[in-house]
Amino acid sequence: MLTYEHPVRVRYVETDGMRVAHHSNYAVWFEEARVALLDDMGCPYRELEERDLLIPVLECSATFRKPAHFDDLLTIVLRMEQKPGVRWRFDYEVKRDAETLATGYTKHAFMSRALQPIRPPKDVLERFAKYF
Amino acid sequence: MLTYEHPVRVRYVETDGMRVAHHSNYAVWFEEARVALLDDMGCPYRELEERDLLIPVLECSATFRKPAHFDDLLTIVLRMEQKPGVRWRFDYEVKRDAETLATGYTKHAFMSRALQPIRPPKDVLERFAKYF
Amino acid sequence: MLTYEHPVRVRYVETDGMRVAHHSNYAVWFEEARVALLDDMGCPYRELEERDLLIPVLECSATFRKPAHFDDLLTIVLRMEQKPGVRWRFDYEVKRDAETLATGYTKHAFMSRALQPIRPPKDVLERFAKYF
Amino acid sequence: MLTYEHPVRVRYVETDGMRVAHHSNYAVWFEEARVALLDDMGCPYRELEERDLLIPVLECSATFRKPAHFDDLLTIVLRMEQKPGVRWRFDYEVKRDAETLATGYTKHAFMSRALQPIRPPKDVLERFAKYF
Repeated sequence: MLTYEHPVRVRYVETDGMRVAHHSNYAVWFEEARVALLDDMGCPYRELEERDLLIPVLECSATFRKPAHFDDLLTIVLRMEQKPGVRWRFDYEVKRDAETLATGYTKHAFMSRALQPIRPPKDVLERFAKYF
Repeated sequence: MLTYEHPVRVRYVETDGMRVAHHSNYAVWFEEARVALLDDMGCPYRELEERDLLIPVLECSATFRKPAHFDDLLTIVLRMEQKPGVRWRFDYEVKRDAETLATGYTKHAFMSRALQPIRPPKDVLERFAKYF
Repeated sequence: MLTYEHPVRVRYVETDGMRVAHHSNYAVWFEEARVALLDDMGCPYRELEERDLLIPVLECSATFRKPAHFDDLLTIVLRMEQKPGVRWRFDYEVKRDAETLATGYTKHAFMSRALQPIRPPKDVLERFAKYF
Repeated sequence: MLTYEHPVRVRYVETDGMRVAHHSNYAVWFEEARVALLDDMGCPYRELEERDLLIPVLECSATFRKPAHFDDLLTIVLRMEQKPGVRWRFDYEVKRDAETLATGYTKHAFMSRALQPIRPPKDVLERFAKYF
């Protein structure tokens, strides 16, 4: 299993009229954590895109337990429980200190610039393989 | 069952570097459709908020089948299959003409301004009851 | 002079912790009005992009007089006071009924897909010429 | 004069169909830098809000010279050239290494929760006074 933690600070623009972070931001934070993980694994998403490799989101789900507020320092805990192959799944936990504010997951596939499914390249899979 | 359709036009700001609408916007479009439905039902969300009634999202999920592009005219088809009570569930289908681009659902509860769960008010429930 | 009006309804996600529309949305509404104007003029931005013609924003400015609230129905009044040439300028007024909530302007140039400045194509200029 | 630097990494969601950061994000980055400055000055915006003190944006302007791309590490250089009183003005420069991508400014006033103008509190003014 692979675990990675990414810090996020709630921006003012991310709050809404309930004075909490709007739920649509969690999908953005999940993405920010994935991008940081790929950096950390040595295959930055920026470089994948330069090779015309995209990893679009096929499914995104989140359950909201407690609200996040402006300026909260959150930790996005990202987990990969299964070795990535054709499909990739990430699980997320949004924490504020010991509290879990939300959980969620995303599912992905590798695609070409024309959004046709392709096999993930070997060098990318190898970087992840050692964790499983 | 209650069905409602709401049109959305993809804004330029909603596109991303893949030149498709970023997945986080679907949660926003779902919300826009809910707000339009409540208007149509005679209990605008704006007025509920003035009564300190909030309907935050407890869960939000979406599956993306085909991308939406800038300026696409989409229809958000919203369905309530169960009579709303303490929990409310909405199902969504994002269509471009006959094509289904995405499906999803959200779950909600009524809450006070202090984000404490409360029973939905009778007048609101009554407006929905006749459809089930 | 060319004048065009575009309606916008304030989305919940666009509100912030002050319970008003966040100021960054005005730039988005200005853009939405420009896109609608280009549609109306018979040269949709979508088609310009397909011809690899982009019209990025070089400057954007707004003055905020009164806040806009969730669900407000706003009118973006867009004006072009000078015949568009190499540089394009749009002036905006954000109105709620008779009240002016904000004013602003944007400046633009035509660019290629590689973001190199190019002359606006004749057919586009001709569509605007008759208003000046 | 007061100068402060705040790092920003361009998120994927912030890119648009031109494959550059959408111009509306600069207003968000300016805000993020202001919030970080207030933290650094010992008067976090979060605490000001708890005292029902808001600092809404009255004017926001930006000039875009070069595009920012996904994953770029930017520095928002924030400057206050005049001692803050009833009106506050911040100037911004968005840099990527030595390059200036954009410049801009915002103007603000202190307001109550009901968005009525009020004088900035002494303790806040004093924290800034020493820099001018």
